[in-house]
Amino acid sequence: MNASREIKYDASGLVPAIVQDAETNEVLMLAYMNAESLELTLSSGETHFWSRSRQELWHKGTTSGNIQRVVEVKVDCDADTLLIRVQPAGPACHTGNQTCFYREMKKTF
Amino acid sequence: MNASREIKYDASGLVPAIVQDAETNEVLMLAYMNAESLELTLSSGETHFWSRSRQELWHKGTTSGNIQRVVEVKVDCDADTLLIRVQPAGPACHTGNQTCFYREMKKTF
Repeated sequence: MNASREIKYDASGLVPAIVQDAETNEVLMLAYMNAESLELTLSSGETHFWSRSRQELWHKGTTSGNIQRVVEVKVDCDADTLLIRVQPAGPACHTGNQTCFYREMKKTF
Repeated sequence: MNASREIKYDASGLVPAIVQDAETNEVLMLAYMNAESLELTLSSGETHFWSRSRQELWHKGTTSGNIQRVVEVKVDCDADTLLIRVQPAGPACHTGNQTCFYREMKKTF
């Protein structure tokens, strides 16, 4: 499919983007993209997001150096979620963990 | 962490849940959970979601037979996204594809 034209953005103009390590297949993080950050991601080959807390464009790795080189971008069946497969330059999480999903929830079954 | 008490739900009372195949590590789908569907998921060991379009609880596989047995539930650093690792009984996608992310977006880089 062609660029970001068919993407269904939510009422805030955002779409959730799952970031996955293209080599290990580990899920690293989930962040949100608006049309501009998706276009920047596609044109630059590095992930860009929209920070909902700071309300600004966010080039992943600008501060930390841990940029994410894009390997492929997939879109789901109803075009309201993206899957970005990347080569990460370092940990995805601000805590220093490789993935933001480093905590297991207690199971009751 | 303990059950769903620390989860940060959005203004609609929902949290996005990434579903990943625990064996292949393929990302299968993204859906949304409210507190009730998360508790049902944890207590039954099968994924339950909140359908935003139908505005109702949704036990994945009730209709299709393609239930998802929960292997582990992870929560991200800021507790606003879940990662559910599952053993799927069949395709995750209503199109019959194994994953909802079966389409690649055209890259411009």
